[in-house]
Amino acid sequence: MVRSSSGNARFDVVGIGNAIVDVLARTEDAALEDLGLAKGSMTLIEASAAEALYRHMGPGIECSGGSAANTIAGLASLGGKAAFIGKVKSDQLGRVFRHDIVSLGVHFTTPPAASGPSTARCLVFVTPDAQRTLQTYLGASVALGPEDIDEAVVAAAQVTYLEGYLYDPPRAKEAFRKACDIAHRRGRKVALSLSDPFCVTRHRSAFRELVAGEIDILFANEHEITALYESADFDAALQAVRGQCEIACLTRSDKGSVIVAGDEVHVIDPAPVAQVVDTTGAGDLYAAGFLYGRTHGHGLAASGRLASLCAAEVIGHLGARPETPLAALARAAGLA
Amino acid sequence: MVRSSSGNARFDVVGIGNAIVDVLARTEDAALEDLGLAKGSMTLIEASAAEALYRHMGPGIECSGGSAANTIAGLASLGGKAAFIGKVKSDQLGRVFRHDIVSLGVHFTTPPAASGPSTARCLVFVTPDAQRTLQTYLGASVALGPEDIDEAVVAAAQVTYLEGYLYDPPRAKEAFRKACDIAHRRGRKVALSLSDPFCVTRHRSAFRELVAGEIDILFANEHEITALYESADFDAALQAVRGQCEIACLTRSDKGSVIVAGDEVHVIDPAPVAQVVDTTGAGDLYAAGFLYGRTHGHGLAASGRLASLCAAEVIGHLGARPETPLAALARAAGLA
Repeated sequence: MVRSSSGNARFDVVGIGNAIVDVLARTEDAALEDLGLAKGSMTLIEASAAEALYRHMGPGIECSGGSAANTIAGLASLGGKAAFIGKVKSDQLGRVFRHDIVSLGVHFTTPPAASGPSTARCLVFVTPDAQRTLQTYLGASVALGPEDIDEAVVAAAQVTYLEGYLYDPPRAKEAFRKACDIAHRRGRKVALSLSDPFCVTRHRSAFRELVAGEIDILFANEHEITALYESADFDAALQAVRGQCEIACLTRSDKGSVIVAGDEVHVIDPAPVAQVVDTTGAGDLYAAGFLYGRTHGHGLAASGRLASLCAAEVIGHLGARPETPLAALARAAGLA
Repeated sequence: MVRSSSGNARFDVVGIGNAIVDVLARTEDAALEDLGLAKGSMTLIEASAAEALYRHMGPGIECSGGSAANTIAGLASLGGKAAFIGKVKSDQLGRVFRHDIVSLGVHFTTPPAASGPSTARCLVFVTPDAQRTLQTYLGASVALGPEDIDEAVVAAAQVTYLEGYLYDPPRAKEAFRKACDIAHRRGRKVALSLSDPFCVTRHRSAFRELVAGEIDILFANEHEITALYESADFDAALQAVRGQCEIACLTRSDKGSVIVAGDEVHVIDPAPVAQVVDTTGAGDLYAAGFLYGRTHGHGLAASGRLASLCAAEVIGHLGARPETPLAALARAAGLA
């Protein structure tokens, strides 16, 4: 439990990440191939490429997204006390992003950019197998810098949760480092999501150092953790990460997850889902459930089961934010 | 069949309506009461009220909407040739609206407003019983005027489909009248959706005259048709509308629909739905299926069954536009 760091904590978790509005559309596999997109990946694209791709995309729905922001929305939906730091522009989609997270009771005061690129958008192509392929235009979110890291907020959170994607824009990386430093100075925990295997490849050595030296709780899926340690298989990666950080949560899609904490290892089954519609946000919501559990006195296994429950909710519909209040689901499952 | 009017038709249907982006959020009944909203209704609100209400709304998803626009999207999703006339602003949500309809292959060339109010938004509160309560800020859509009615497009469509909501903004009503005149002059059919019982009450005598004098195909739900004729019950309303126009399609939610055409009466069962999530767009998609059927040589009953199938798809998820290509569903059901 994150007991050691819970003194005087106004927030359970502060999330720091790219503030993105998702545009989701169902797509056939053939169309994905025609567009030359690598299924299952996240690719960063420029404004002009985003415009061109959007023209070739089918009708969509818009839904607030962003990896860490999804986690924070999930945590708030569970009833947790949460804050978010990330950059939108003062445009319509920026106001949508702000509304969606603030209406959950999340503390979000990062000033929007008044000029420059528009609010970040992620084009999400959802194939019939419920896989998602992400094309991200970072827009205003690259304007996030160390000046946006509110020391008082980070100091007041039991856990500072960072997404690996922050290592892509240079000033966001500085913001990441600053938040890390503040959290540790105040005796708080730092959690990291590895975000994406390609993101891991882009920043492998930096991420390895981070995990070994500064991260208390790591979230990674099978592809990310094997990419991080260039492991032959999942088990080899599991052995590689063991002991590198206090807790590693390794997710494996429909095989559930494995939680490693020193000598403790817990194998967590996935929660049942009537129909998997869209896997966007599965990892983000897993992290929400786990962090809620850990900041509310639950053990590793119970936190893992809550994590699976939250992931199951979000893959049952289009979009990476919960549609059903997670607190009610958790109560119904006896996991609150 | 609409055979008499199908000569040289470039379009099956042109829809004319308010161009709206929906903001959908799940809401408890108690919250609806706290906000003083009348469940199941559509209310027009000003910009300031929309802002205030949005602040009290939970996190949402954005999805292109607008009654006639939803019908046109459904028709295109069935593989029909469709056009739309409606007004957005040249802002982010306006571009979302345009993208969503154009990406379906719909002809949509109404110039966006360069200044003035922003693109129209409809706040949709979806309660656990799948009912929806609509609060509409008409924004840029009130700028639609007769100058936006492209005579060539209306002349080239077998059916001109109009939403009753157009009678609310004065210049949109002029646009409605102009389109009606063009269609009749060119020997085309005119269809009308009564939109909403309150809309009917606002314009009762005008709508009665329209139905008796100018409308070939009428779409109305039980509440709208009883409001139109101030009837005591559904059967009385059915007798009142019989003979007023060529075809009247009267929808009754989970009781299915009744199609009246002179001496012919067809009672159509609803199509099965695994779970009713959100009834937004049910009537709009019913109209899409029926009009596709009628413009593709189907009889009244077969068109009604296709209408029910389309309505069933859209109430199975959040949002008023189909998520699954309707042409595939129609083929699978033997109704293409």
